[in-house]
Amino acid sequence: MLDTSRPKSSIGRYFEDFNLNETIDHPSPRTITEGDVALYHALTGNRFVLQTSNQFARDVGYQAAPVDDIFVFNAVFGLSVPDISQNARANLGYAECDFLSQLYVGETIRARSTVIGLRETSSGDAGIVYVRTEGLDHRDLPLLRFCRWVLVPKRDASATLGTAHVPDLAPTVASVTVPRHKINRHWTDHFAGSPYRWDDFQPGEKIDHQHGVTVEDAEHKIATRLYRNTAHVHFDSRRAENGRPIVYGGHIISIARALSYNGLANACIVASINAGRHVSPVYAGDTIYAWTEVVTKVELERRSDIGALRLVTRAFKNRDCTSFPTDDDDGCVLTLDYSVILPRR
Amino acid sequence: MLDTSRPKSSIGRYFEDFNLNETIDHPSPRTITEGDVALYHALTGNRFVLQTSNQFARDVGYQAAPVDDIFVFNAVFGLSVPDISQNARANLGYAECDFLSQLYVGETIRARSTVIGLRETSSGDAGIVYVRTEGLDHRDLPLLRFCRWVLVPKRDASATLGTAHVPDLAPTVASVTVPRHKINRHWTDHFAGSPYRWDDFQPGEKIDHQHGVTVEDAEHKIATRLYRNTAHVHFDSRRAENGRPIVYGGHIISIARALSYNGLANACIVASINAGRHVSPVYAGDTIYAWTEVVTKVELERRSDIGALRLVTRAFKNRDCTSFPTDDDDGCVLTLDYSVILPRR
Amino acid sequence: MLDTSRPKSSIGRYFEDFNLNETIDHPSPRTITEGDVALYHALTGNRFVLQTSNQFARDVGYQAAPVDDIFVFNAVFGLSVPDISQNARANLGYAECDFLSQLYVGETIRARSTVIGLRETSSGDAGIVYVRTEGLDHRDLPLLRFCRWVLVPKRDASATLGTAHVPDLAPTVASVTVPRHKINRHWTDHFAGSPYRWDDFQPGEKIDHQHGVTVEDAEHKIATRLYRNTAHVHFDSRRAENGRPIVYGGHIISIARALSYNGLANACIVASINAGRHVSPVYAGDTIYAWTEVVTKVELERRSDIGALRLVTRAFKNRDCTSFPTDDDDGCVLTLDYSVILPRR
Repeated sequence: MLDTSRPKSSIGRYFEDFNLNETIDHPSPRTITEGDVALYHALTGNRFVLQTSNQFARDVGYQAAPVDDIFVFNAVFGLSVPDISQNARANLGYAECDFLSQLYVGETIRARSTVIGLRETSSGDAGIVYVRTEGLDHRDLPLLRFCRWVLVPKRDASATLGTAHVPDLAPTVASVTVPRHKINRHWTDHFAGSPYRWDDFQPGEKIDHQHGVTVEDAEHKIATRLYRNTAHVHFDSRRAENGRPIVYGGHIISIARALSYNGLANACIVASINAGRHVSPVYAGDTIYAWTEVVTKVELERRSDIGALRLVTRAFKNRDCTSFPTDDDDGCVLTLDYSVILPRR
Repeated sequence: MLDTSRPKSSIGRYFEDFNLNETIDHPSPRTITEGDVALYHALTGNRFVLQTSNQFARDVGYQAAPVDDIFVFNAVFGLSVPDISQNARANLGYAECDFLSQLYVGETIRARSTVIGLRETSSGDAGIVYVRTEGLDHRDLPLLRFCRWVLVPKRDASATLGTAHVPDLAPTVASVTVPRHKINRHWTDHFAGSPYRWDDFQPGEKIDHQHGVTVEDAEHKIATRLYRNTAHVHFDSRRAENGRPIVYGGHIISIARALSYNGLANACIVASINAGRHVSPVYAGDTIYAWTEVVTKVELERRSDIGALRLVTRAFKNRDCTSFPTDDDDGCVLTLDYSVILPRR
Repeated sequence: MLDTSRPKSSIGRYFEDFNLNETIDHPSPRTITEGDVALYHALTGNRFVLQTSNQFARDVGYQAAPVDDIFVFNAVFGLSVPDISQNARANLGYAECDFLSQLYVGETIRARSTVIGLRETSSGDAGIVYVRTEGLDHRDLPLLRFCRWVLVPKRDASATLGTAHVPDLAPTVASVTVPRHKINRHWTDHFAGSPYRWDDFQPGEKIDHQHGVTVEDAEHKIATRLYRNTAHVHFDSRRAENGRPIVYGGHIISIARALSYNGLANACIVASINAGRHVSPVYAGDTIYAWTEVVTKVELERRSDIGALRLVTRAFKNRDCTSFPTDDDDGCVLTLDYSVILPRR
């Protein structure tokens, strides 16, 4: 029975509040509108043509411009925050993120998560919570699934809980979910912004995305609210270390993805995120640069129209990427191992 | 006859320029679009499900997600600013704000105001202007009505005008306008974000909304333009005291309302604002917290689906609300006495 | 043949990379949505009623509210930046900008440019590139055409190229493109926001637009991404002189145009830009004011419903315009010579 004498607001969960295998239906399903999409593009600089031109999208066989995959990722992630990571100190990593179907403007999304792992940290005052989160559309069909793990403080820092379960996460998404859409011969490279198709990339190839973007507090806060992410560290300067809000890591993924247009303009579709890690935090005033390494080329069964590339994109703060710095170099803020879809010749 | 030799731009009205009982039709009717609504949610953090999910809204009996009531309030208020409070030093208070019907995306709104009171201040260089403002939809049907009073400087600070009329404003909106929509059994608490319905609240109950949000200059300026509020004090640093633009008070109402989701997630509809007061100004860098006291529970005639709660929400700057501070405590920025509608069991 | 061994990202063109008479089809056509328009209005303060009310637009004979002309100008300009002015030091001027047809929400735009002039600067390390840029709608019909010239550094500062061609640009757009729409008798001055129609303005008349607006970094960056302008100087503080990003000049045109509502509210349509010049740069923290001089009144053939005014609007930073300062006065940031359409009595 509902205990109406308890406080009706939530302080968010602490490590003690999670139970292995529990499933949480997250509140506030939301309809994704043209307004959300316009704001996403204006906040990130996203220019991939399949997502920005209804005409291009229709010409190549879509019903309309699909909603950007990384925006959908951030929007599903955001819906999970009040239940999972409201009090989190850090998002530690992502794995097994599979994009299952395209979302269109006007559709309503919601999210649910299952706790798949719990482990206390060695310092003892916090724990790592592993969840698998699923985004669903208005018909309850899955849009994407991903695992993430976050550092969550204990309510009682001295408590010892003893239980530990670390899930076995795949280093790569087992098989790329192949988009159903056939790309037809109307895909126009000069509209997309690059002459380079799947055929033209080689494993080991490195691409410096050149542009840099200095992040402002108002920008990342508006973006983070656009994603419905409510975690204190992004909004409440008084609760943030040194009074400086941390930029939500998923927004850095969006910025890096937008920067990658310069070199990967034909890679309009993200098929999976194999692994992601926020190597160090970003604050307002930091300037973000990115570069990408082509890891492997994947032929897709029975599909002569498209192919997949597995990429690693690294983002850096206050350091350009002309020398292709590594995760160990100063200023690394993001390593993202993911797969994209490109048209073939 | 039109005097075309006069300056064609307006410097905005001073106290001398208002006449008791005069009615002003405000210019620039505007169509409220999905873009406006997306921006409102991204600037305020609004998450009430009835306003964010077309699917939820349709499931419970609406034609689509209605536009957020406080956004409509701010948008109607904003249209009145160039004529009423362009030069105002402060918004002193609100009363008798009654929400009469729901607005939907795609509809066009306009505003008109009647001057219902005028009173010189004791210092003599300014006066208080009382207006009743009405928001109308594209069919000229009223959306909402409210009274507000503002401190407006005199053009000639030494002028003595002598006239004084202070209107008699009700301490409470006489009768709550009951929403026509019947809420059906498809209202889902776990989508709305709270198990607590009308039945579960008790007079005297206090709810700390927990989250805090630090305001940025770009955020409140974009929001204030979204509301079409053009008052100098929000935009022109050179005319602002100490060079710091003041955050528009209506935006603080929006932030407090968005924070109240945490505890009042089922209170998706605002029925009235009985009284509102901006106790002290907010500037960029201030962090806003809020808490709510349940004042009374109101049963609505012939309605077993919904009930009303009269609430007082108080917002504070740079001070959290765990101890439920009062209007007299340091840091109080807003006291809002209003009524909301919740589903019943 | 495509050389796949070259870097796949672009560093943007330098002066050496332009060829006289070459035509460039710019990538990333985009659908203009209600979201883009809402964001434009919230970032600029635009209040011209024809563009903000679908109902007003339909009442006077349009199919819906047309998209703001200066937004279309900036959006077409923005699409040309990655190919023309990614590395530009400054936008030097505009000429012969003719607005040919109205754009509506939901339509897709693209851009192409022809290089019409090239001239090395006297310092020798840079050159001036003159282009004619055309915006096209989804049916490939022209929306607008304009010329601009930009200062572009040489890749090799010591190179001497010798070639010079300076185009002969008209000081005025030859003939104003008359809007096809007939304005009917439903044009309502009190909705538009001004009693003054074409008939009421006189050559030589000066209008101080009164309001001032202090620009924030996040605002102009979001706006500049909304326009798809990617030039380094606006986004990358590390590449900007003194670490301060320059506000994109086209956004200053938008702000000046929005300010001009106060005095020119009936001038809802921009017919042409004869000449434009960014006299000095604007940075975050600067407060923008503007005033307008009526240069000439133009009767339009066979049109008794509308007339054109040729205007010069000047914008200043940190200096109000009550004394109508000139281009040579301190603080001038913009001189814009353009023509607008107003209803006649």
